[in-house]
Amino acid sequence: MEPVHETLATAVVQQGGSVTKGTLRARIARAVEAKWFQNTIILVIVLNGISLGLETYDDRFSWAAPYFQMAEHAFVTFFVIELALKIYAHGWAFFRRPWNWFDLVVVGTAVIPTSESFSVLRLLRVLRLLRLISVIPQMRQIVSALFRSVPGLGTVILLLFVIMYTSAVMGEKLFEDIAPEYFGDLGITLYTLFMLLTTENWPDISDAVIADAPYAWIFFVVFIVVSAFIVLNLIIGVIVATMEQEVSEERWEEDQELELRQHEAVMTQLNALTDQVAALSKQVRELGGTVRQSESQPSRAGAED
Amino acid sequence: MEPVHETLATAVVQQGGSVTKGTLRARIARAVEAKWFQNTIILVIVLNGISLGLETYDDRFSWAAPYFQMAEHAFVTFFVIELALKIYAHGWAFFRRPWNWFDLVVVGTAVIPTSESFSVLRLLRVLRLLRLISVIPQMRQIVSALFRSVPGLGTVILLLFVIMYTSAVMGEKLFEDIAPEYFGDLGITLYTLFMLLTTENWPDISDAVIADAPYAWIFFVVFIVVSAFIVLNLIIGVIVATMEQEVSEERWEEDQELELRQHEAVMTQLNALTDQVAALSKQVRELGGTVRQSESQPSRAGAED
Amino acid sequence: MEPVHETLATAVVQQGGSVTKGTLRARIARAVEAKWFQNTIILVIVLNGISLGLETYDDRFSWAAPYFQMAEHAFVTFFVIELALKIYAHGWAFFRRPWNWFDLVVVGTAVIPTSESFSVLRLLRVLRLLRLISVIPQMRQIVSALFRSVPGLGTVILLLFVIMYTSAVMGEKLFEDIAPEYFGDLGITLYTLFMLLTTENWPDISDAVIADAPYAWIFFVVFIVVSAFIVLNLIIGVIVATMEQEVSEERWEEDQELELRQHEAVMTQLNALTDQVAALSKQVRELGGTVRQSESQPSRAGAED
Amino acid sequence: MEPVHETLATAVVQQGGSVTKGTLRARIARAVEAKWFQNTIILVIVLNGISLGLETYDDRFSWAAPYFQMAEHAFVTFFVIELALKIYAHGWAFFRRPWNWFDLVVVGTAVIPTSESFSVLRLLRVLRLLRLISVIPQMRQIVSALFRSVPGLGTVILLLFVIMYTSAVMGEKLFEDIAPEYFGDLGITLYTLFMLLTTENWPDISDAVIADAPYAWIFFVVFIVVSAFIVLNLIIGVIVATMEQEVSEERWEEDQELELRQHEAVMTQLNALTDQVAALSKQVRELGGTVRQSESQPSRAGAED
Repeated sequence: MEPVHETLATAVVQQGGSVTKGTLRARIARAVEAKWFQNTIILVIVLNGISLGLETYDDRFSWAAPYFQMAEHAFVTFFVIELALKIYAHGWAFFRRPWNWFDLVVVGTAVIPTSESFSVLRLLRVLRLLRLISVIPQMRQIVSALFRSVPGLGTVILLLFVIMYTSAVMGEKLFEDIAPEYFGDLGITLYTLFMLLTTENWPDISDAVIADAPYAWIFFVVFIVVSAFIVLNLIIGVIVATMEQEVSEERWEEDQELELRQHEAVMTQLNALTDQVAALSKQVRELGGTVRQSESQPSRAGAED
Repeated sequence: MEPVHETLATAVVQQGGSVTKGTLRARIARAVEAKWFQNTIILVIVLNGISLGLETYDDRFSWAAPYFQMAEHAFVTFFVIELALKIYAHGWAFFRRPWNWFDLVVVGTAVIPTSESFSVLRLLRVLRLLRLISVIPQMRQIVSALFRSVPGLGTVILLLFVIMYTSAVMGEKLFEDIAPEYFGDLGITLYTLFMLLTTENWPDISDAVIADAPYAWIFFVVFIVVSAFIVLNLIIGVIVATMEQEVSEERWEEDQELELRQHEAVMTQLNALTDQVAALSKQVRELGGTVRQSESQPSRAGAED
Repeated sequence: MEPVHETLATAVVQQGGSVTKGTLRARIARAVEAKWFQNTIILVIVLNGISLGLETYDDRFSWAAPYFQMAEHAFVTFFVIELALKIYAHGWAFFRRPWNWFDLVVVGTAVIPTSESFSVLRLLRVLRLLRLISVIPQMRQIVSALFRSVPGLGTVILLLFVIMYTSAVMGEKLFEDIAPEYFGDLGITLYTLFMLLTTENWPDISDAVIADAPYAWIFFVVFIVVSAFIVLNLIIGVIVATMEQEVSEERWEEDQELELRQHEAVMTQLNALTDQVAALSKQVRELGGTVRQSESQPSRAGAED
Repeated sequence: MEPVHETLATAVVQQGGSVTKGTLRARIARAVEAKWFQNTIILVIVLNGISLGLETYDDRFSWAAPYFQMAEHAFVTFFVIELALKIYAHGWAFFRRPWNWFDLVVVGTAVIPTSESFSVLRLLRVLRLLRLISVIPQMRQIVSALFRSVPGLGTVILLLFVIMYTSAVMGEKLFEDIAPEYFGDLGITLYTLFMLLTTENWPDISDAVIADAPYAWIFFVVFIVVSAFIVLNLIIGVIVATMEQEVSEERWEEDQELELRQHEAVMTQLNALTDQVAALSKQVRELGGTVRQSESQPSRAGAED
């Protein structure tokens, strides 16, 4: 389904007329697309993940801190070389693929020097592990499908937010004085409604409110039914429809191809038949000419007579 | 998919013969449908939402109360003018679209004067934020799809309610004396069953009952399986089927069109062939006539002989 | 989609040759299928539901107990008469529809006299409210679709049970001594696993076990992933696939019909063309006969010469 | 859908030329595939399950321990004989089906002698109950469908794990000091995130963190939305798409067959027509020959004249 990667190397080679098969650039392009290269990257990312994981056991592995530091440097160096090779091999084509931008940003943040021992940049380095998604084709494919459905998924999430925001303003106005710990201001209320959305702890929240406002159950039941039972399930709807589309793609294309092939077969046969009839028609016309001639001949013969 | 809006203006212009392109009404109709007009409305609704959100932080923004009041007046004025323009532009056509009724009611409640500082009407004004759904086409489309599936969605929700009501009457009769805090009367029981439906806190409820009625687990397990695992998932079923239908619409129409186009091509070719054969038939008939003539001529010639 | 009801009356009338349109039975059959009759039944069931609901508020409505008793008698009488009419009208055909058996059983339990004030039979009367499902066509249709999918739905629920039972035996053997309140015997363990299935309170359960058996998290995570994330979603899968099938039915039939109609058009045209060519062929054969005659005539003429 | 079992016996019989219908092996092969044999196995597995279930009530059935031991021996003997018969009947073909390997391993663990009263091997014997899945065709079919979708299902679960692992490393680094009971090291954090994934107890966890890090809600909300609302629903997406594919298989094949049959009918008719026209063409050519002859005859006749 995604043979882009495989063909890119060839594309580069063919595109640039000066880049012949034997040049260094072409050889790197082929190496960079090779199976063993991909697998090496996957391995290094996994090792990086293990290293980052072990690092979290600081008590037990405190003696290993300098080694983790070294490993980190080694991983960053590896990824920088990998991306440099890819950029060199693919040239500008590299920057045309969004997944490459993701790789670039995630690796880039690791190169920026940072003096503090704890910083946001250090944290962003962890995102490097997500490169597994961009490197393994099957996972890239699923995430791409999700993003392609993004008009749908984005719309549903926006719809959910509009409903939550409106409910939050209403809820805050209604229950502000009754349960300020849940409906104190807009921020707190949105957090509370997110709990309702996951249907977690909602009886605690609603009990706290219902004690003073007996009809508040309407608010909670309506909100849960609309947001958790209906709008949240729209997300499932969008995802399932996207997956389905993806899965039935093959079958659909097979159908289409069959239809086109059959149609072509019928049309070919019909055209052949039409030509045959046309040829027959010409035959008959010629025959008509012959007959008319033969008809006029006897009469001419009669005239000659 | 929903070019209704765009074409309405034209429709109005074309419908009323007296309304020519240059008139004020036509110009307003075009303005009202314009992209910038839509975006302005979206912006004002978002601003209104931010204003309503900030208002909830009453402690921090108590000094700003008069400004919020002013903003509220400005927003209401804007929406009233917007709807007035739309009604003027579209005339009776405006009232034929359900989304416009929603807009009208939601804005209308803001105009009704209310003396009390806290009232239901003041609360309904918050619903104005939901106009985002009616103004943004993608969201309008999804919600419309949901409502179009309403025979399905409504039926499933009614089915859920019938099952919950019946179970509530049974549960109340069974466990009224054992756990009156959960099964005291029908209202309390329905609320309890709604908790079971969200599978929230159900072990607490069932433990309270099972202590006295060891076989009560049957009631809880059966209710959760039937309502939470099966009937609630029917909602997902309806939503997914609707989304799917929507998503595969395009592909289906493409199929249909392809089929019709192919069929037409075959039929055109067949008809042409039929005409050709008919022409050929005529040719042969004429030839037959000629031959018969030429046959009778020699004999006549023979007779003349 | 379900015009069975409407046509049954006619069927009865047509089936029994002796039952003419004017007879009492035919008239009752028509009445029983009429819209107003259906609506009356729905109304009576709803009233019955309200009556049963009010009855649960025994403290407030204790004075009304005799009226509830009277209402109950009235409702039972109504349903008995309704079913009697239907049986008289439809004869044996009545017993061929499973929904009618449901009605019969549910109403039947109400007729059995019971001396005790509280009994299972009294409780089963509440199930009468579920007749709403059998009386309202849309709901009957959805539930029928679910039951038709029952090979699937039943298999999934059985699969879920096999997995739960096996896990329960294992869990009981593993954690019996650590947390007897959750894993005491098979019954308790199954109840515990049902909680895990709804993912309710599972951290409490697992924490109680993990304290003594650190690797027990494997059991909990694997069970939740397999049963709650995968097998439970199979239920959604079956329901969605069924709904989809139902929804796309119309479109599919339209496709099929289109295909058949187009095919028929092509074949009709082709057959007409074939006939035309056959006629042409005959024409040519006749022409050939004429030519051969005319060819032999001159030679005969020449012979006569 | 799965007539593999039924045909295997015949296949074996036909494959081995030396194995004629009357031999012992062929007779066993037929017995092993017979309905009554299958049902006997199902019955024995169910009995084994009941026995294992009763065993868990050790207090009440402590006197029956030796009987359970005997039953266990009987069940193992039965299963060993069953598999031996199947291997004898099917030969190497037996080992080509993955379900048979499952049966073999699960029964095999029961045969390995173990001295300890409690061991992992004793526990694995419980897995024998899962053989119900491999023995009942409908369940085998659903599970097979799930495994066939495994590229999809496996990818989604891997994607979920990558996201959880990355989030865990980040979460541990962020909240290690604030809430060590939830974010102490990577293992604890992964367990915490699994709780978030099931949305169980998440407000407790997030409250513990938010107390010290007010903006931590972003972490929790983003993680729940991405993992629980989106990626977890991808599992539903894969399952539903698989089920749908399975369910619509029949309809699709019917479509395909209809299309092929119709196409064949059209092509047959077209070919017949082409042959007819070819025959006609030949007729006309012959006629042309006759005419030309008859034309040259009179002229020859004239020459003879």
